[in-house]
Amino acid sequence: MEQVAVIGAGSFGTSLANVLADKGLQVDLYARREELVREINEQHTNRHYLPEVSIHPGVRASANLSDVLKGKKWVLIVTPSSAFRETLRAMRPHLDPEASVAHGTKGFDLETGQRMTQVMEDELPELDKSRFAVVSGPSHAEEVSQRIPTTVVVASRRQSTAEGFQDLLMTSYLRVYTNPDVIGTEVGGTLKNIIALGVGMCDGLGFGDNAKAALMTRGLTEISRLGVHLGASHLTFGGLSGVGDLIATCTSKHSRNWRAGYALGQGKPLDEVLEQMGMVVEGVRATKAAYQIAGEQGIDMPITKAIYHVLFEGLSPKAAVEELMTRRKVHEMEEVAEAVSLKWDLP
Amino acid sequence: MEQVAVIGAGSFGTSLANVLADKGLQVDLYARREELVREINEQHTNRHYLPEVSIHPGVRASANLSDVLKGKKWVLIVTPSSAFRETLRAMRPHLDPEASVAHGTKGFDLETGQRMTQVMEDELPELDKSRFAVVSGPSHAEEVSQRIPTTVVVASRRQSTAEGFQDLLMTSYLRVYTNPDVIGTEVGGTLKNIIALGVGMCDGLGFGDNAKAALMTRGLTEISRLGVHLGASHLTFGGLSGVGDLIATCTSKHSRNWRAGYALGQGKPLDEVLEQMGMVVEGVRATKAAYQIAGEQGIDMPITKAIYHVLFEGLSPKAAVEELMTRRKVHEMEEVAEAVSLKWDLP
Repeated sequence: MEQVAVIGAGSFGTSLANVLADKGLQVDLYARREELVREINEQHTNRHYLPEVSIHPGVRASANLSDVLKGKKWVLIVTPSSAFRETLRAMRPHLDPEASVAHGTKGFDLETGQRMTQVMEDELPELDKSRFAVVSGPSHAEEVSQRIPTTVVVASRRQSTAEGFQDLLMTSYLRVYTNPDVIGTEVGGTLKNIIALGVGMCDGLGFGDNAKAALMTRGLTEISRLGVHLGASHLTFGGLSGVGDLIATCTSKHSRNWRAGYALGQGKPLDEVLEQMGMVVEGVRATKAAYQIAGEQGIDMPITKAIYHVLFEGLSPKAAVEELMTRRKVHEMEEVAEAVSLKWDLP
Repeated sequence: MEQVAVIGAGSFGTSLANVLADKGLQVDLYARREELVREINEQHTNRHYLPEVSIHPGVRASANLSDVLKGKKWVLIVTPSSAFRETLRAMRPHLDPEASVAHGTKGFDLETGQRMTQVMEDELPELDKSRFAVVSGPSHAEEVSQRIPTTVVVASRRQSTAEGFQDLLMTSYLRVYTNPDVIGTEVGGTLKNIIALGVGMCDGLGFGDNAKAALMTRGLTEISRLGVHLGASHLTFGGLSGVGDLIATCTSKHSRNWRAGYALGQGKPLDEVLEQMGMVVEGVRATKAAYQIAGEQGIDMPITKAIYHVLFEGLSPKAAVEELMTRRKVHEMEEVAEAVSLKWDLP
């Protein structure tokens, strides 16, 4: 029987552990707090992160990384991006050298601008990087836990790694696709949280479905532009981990990033919003990281820029959204038209 | 002062007439029924199609096509696709030979499979086809009428025609982009209604946001595949008239197609659903047309096929959605991977 370690007992980590236990696998789940370990093992709940969900008794929680990782050939890491590097450092001495490691973390490393698999290459040098992968896609943890049909993507630079995680995770209600584009999969999952903040603001301000759809469309273009610059395929942004995850995040009541944006749109200050959420809002960090990268490398990202100004420089959400809606009139495809011969064909 | 004729006093036609009158233009609006003409001219309402909206007194309705079209250099046609050809035939003797004509109709001609601008080329042979255009994008009429910020695309084969309609329609709350890809703009606006029916079914069955996002993503791929086959640019499907309109239609309570799908998902029969809507549901006709084209030309459209089976062959929505969720496991990009060298890069 396959033995799996899941590192991080937040919403997504706990729900992935649940899926695996539901398939009959032995699952060890690492949680940092002893109190949460006891709640999971004794009451089979994780009320803060997954209210109203029963956790499968096959999920065994522990706060001891060595116990959790011992002999595991399959490891899933799902921590907030801010805790990712330190978690890898703590894992390093305990990891099986033959392990395949996938992460489900959405964010850049704020110090270095690195993607999470780049941080893995840095911090886990003993492991073969062809065994690294990322799991992403439109997958609200609440729904996965309730066995509501969901699709995800596993991306890895090696096909057999991606297919290994595909076989591991696939169930009747979790459909897993593979993709060789690690960069695009990571960038899409990270940057969609910025757009979700913007769409939340738009909704909080009382704009309608037309404006929301326009912001998501222009946002997808902007995400894709940065992704391609960083080495991604533009095709990935048209797939589940791109537009799919963007849609799920921007249109669902489950999304923390949307909810944070909504509260900002209603006029609440950022500090208060983050305090009330009580969970990490990855979009806030992602906005800072993307703003820096776009500035350094000269990439046009008007939505990210406007949201950065709201979050960190006191611009009102209303002024930001109005600015985005009233930019000069343009040809929709002007930036790409030349590249693909999209031209007016009559004189 | 520009004089404009709007042909068709449904939701979208009436709201475009309202935008133009709001800008101070003289607008003649053609409605077929004398009763609606009187309601618009005397009470300044169109309660069936746009409840709770006041119509600008500058909109002058008439059931006489000759009066409406006389001397007009700018004409907007917004009828259901089923009435499009006969409306053009009735318009033909009254059109100014110098007129620029844009349509806002979403659908294919069911008899011939033609797009609406192809029908215009057939039925209005005296007019220069470089003066034809299409208006599309995420633009629920209810919101446009309430001056809630909205973006649309005008596509034409000639830049000056697209820019002419851009100048005509642009206001502080209606932002207009141009695009040279008439085929992609028409196909996207038509086929998204099929996906909206499917997403409505998915919601009516009680599936979640993850499944909905997945269906929209796979639906966009499928729409784009047919569009490119018909001569469209795939870029257009990533823009406002593609993914933008898809999002607005699939996630909004305003969408008739979503509402029809929702009722089907809840187990109501098609006849009853259509009767209760009391308005045209373009997605039903679009499903039939796309199913025919895909079958004749060998294009893989599993979502369209499943929805066709629900609408016309008695398949239950539940069986259709389950079938779509449980197809063999695949590489996300397998169809396009070879074309763009999206390859696994480690052995």
